[in-house]
Amino acid sequence: MKVVIVGSGNVATHLSLAMASLEGIEICQVYSPTEAHAQILAERLNCDFITDPTQIRRDADVYLFALKDQALEPVIRAVPANNGLWLHTSGSMPMQVFAGYTERYGVLYPLQTFSKSREISFRGIPLFIECHREEDKNCLEDLARRLSGKVCELSSEKRRSLHLAAVFACNFTNHIYALAEEILAKEGLSRDYLFPLIDETAAKVHELPAREAQTGPAIRYDENIINKHLGMLADYPDVQMLYRLLSQSIHKKV
Amino acid sequence: MKVVIVGSGNVATHLSLAMASLEGIEICQVYSPTEAHAQILAERLNCDFITDPTQIRRDADVYLFALKDQALEPVIRAVPANNGLWLHTSGSMPMQVFAGYTERYGVLYPLQTFSKSREISFRGIPLFIECHREEDKNCLEDLARRLSGKVCELSSEKRRSLHLAAVFACNFTNHIYALAEEILAKEGLSRDYLFPLIDETAAKVHELPAREAQTGPAIRYDENIINKHLGMLADYPDVQMLYRLLSQSIHKKV
Repeated sequence: MKVVIVGSGNVATHLSLAMASLEGIEICQVYSPTEAHAQILAERLNCDFITDPTQIRRDADVYLFALKDQALEPVIRAVPANNGLWLHTSGSMPMQVFAGYTERYGVLYPLQTFSKSREISFRGIPLFIECHREEDKNCLEDLARRLSGKVCELSSEKRRSLHLAAVFACNFTNHIYALAEEILAKEGLSRDYLFPLIDETAAKVHELPAREAQTGPAIRYDENIINKHLGMLADYPDVQMLYRLLSQSIHKKV
Repeated sequence: MKVVIVGSGNVATHLSLAMASLEGIEICQVYSPTEAHAQILAERLNCDFITDPTQIRRDADVYLFALKDQALEPVIRAVPANNGLWLHTSGSMPMQVFAGYTERYGVLYPLQTFSKSREISFRGIPLFIECHREEDKNCLEDLARRLSGKVCELSSEKRRSLHLAAVFACNFTNHIYALAEEILAKEGLSRDYLFPLIDETAAKVHELPAREAQTGPAIRYDENIINKHLGMLADYPDVQMLYRLLSQSIHKKV
């Protein structure tokens, strides 16, 4: 199976390396508009790279589009017609973004956060797949099952809700960690102190729904502590506002 | 060493059970204003319980006050004078809350989230200690080191910043998980899908400062996705406002 990787970001990097490690899969080309990025990934995959989407090869079996949402349609439009299976990896773009450009298309959405510098095993990452043509389903499902132990069919509409939930569970959570780290840094306290707490908070929700696991001043509505904390954040009105709204939201169980 | 446990909540329960497991420590009494709670914990510790703080024994070596902040001073006031070491476990109350009631006092603050239903090993929990009298330091430090491998001396002022950071890293993070779970529940999607993402987000900050680990639409400032997500939350104005403020805060790196 010959694969072209369209993109060179975090998802493109991790997914292409995972695919390259599978027997019988050959990554034959990397496209990225940024030459340096295209080159780095192509070197890791030991294949050619291009920076012009009209130069994308026509003889591959799978075209994996791992691009920012805004870049997806302009690049799709530029790809030369071919008979491969076109897949994108976006949580929020509908599968129909391919409609009109090819008949063979689908989605392979990995629900995970990727950083280029961090190794991660694909086996445990939930992969959500969607396929336009019944005839292409087996091919997509086989590919997904070779990559991960958790493969699930999901419509574009449900996928965008999953993606919204993931923005909360990952991106917003990580930002909350960043705010906590800043509070410690201001006092010269090590951010390492928080790791057991962060780990236990994450581990707890495997056992209990998060709503039942809630602890702290806001769920008890301890106004004494809440007001002290708001006072401590007086110089940081944006963070203070987040503290206030999150506490209210916990209290109202919204 | 005889210990009286003043309180019967999550911290009182976990800390007293950890202390009871140490050789040479005897928990001799539990106080709680709520008889049912006092009784449950006293049964687990195999000791007496009382619901009137004026009945607290006078012959113990350590009095551990694990109470809500508002309850702390009224209960301290009611405890009969004695010669034991008085310790509270609060992140946000200054050590000086004991001043005037006794000369021997300090703080033993465990930085962790506790639920009664969940077992947790105390060895990995950072314990922050503070002591009024130099002569009591050894006693407190010994006790803390027998409970945990991570003991650190910390002033009341720095402790309250640590507690504020912990409210973000744990309580707010958990609430963000709860919002994510609700988004999934509305679509009939299992909350289990999020576990690998939640775990990886937590694991990542062991290696990278959270600010460097940030991914997602807000850090890229992908207005296309952000606006779609805000639209999906139109029926939940409080959650929509949180989405907007968190995204702005990520973008501004506030």
